[in-house]
Amino acid sequence: MIFEQAELHIKPNLEKDFLTAFNKAKFIIASMKGFINIDLLKCIEKENTYLLLVKWETLNDHEIGFRKSDQYQEWKQLLHHFYEPFPKVYHYESVLK
Amino acid sequence: MIFEQAELHIKPNLEKDFLTAFNKAKFIIASMKGFINIDLLKCIEKENTYLLLVKWETLNDHEIGFRKSDQYQEWKQLLHHFYEPFPKVYHYESVLK
Repeated sequence: MIFEQAELHIKPNLEKDFLTAFNKAKFIIASMKGFINIDLLKCIEKENTYLLLVKWETLNDHEIGFRKSDQYQEWKQLLHHFYEPFPKVYHYESVLK
Repeated sequence: MIFEQAELHIKPNLEKDFLTAFNKAKFIIASMKGFINIDLLKCIEKENTYLLLVKWETLNDHEIGFRKSDQYQEWKQLLHHFYEPFPKVYHYESVLK
């Protein structure tokens, strides 16, 4: 299992619109092969800052299966204009026994 | 529910020792009031980089209950010397419906 993680910085005054869009977009990503779970977390200490955490079965399910899909174009259209700067996405694996 | 999150940068060549220490330290934090869950994730793209995610019932369970406790001194002694630079810790709340 792989965690996709990104810190999202939302343009000022657009947080409400972003959350509305995200609540639509989550159904797009949730329909993809290898998708396990998604969470969107709001930072308490930093304004307009969110943490996106998506669990995938494999790295390829995210990087190829999702990012090369038509559904990714819908996700992008719904969400990418809210970000400033554009987020860096990283992948993680659990190491706890 | 609150997520404590920190990006951990482990000094070179100490990752194995860090993981051994972490597998002891997790039992310390897991015994605290308000603790729900812990995960330690290793970054695929960035060397020596981990993500610590701890779920707490409330912010005070982490910031006061744990950080002002004797157990925190044990946690600190086991782990803090592995970090360079010292991590910034943030707190997050889930916003998904």
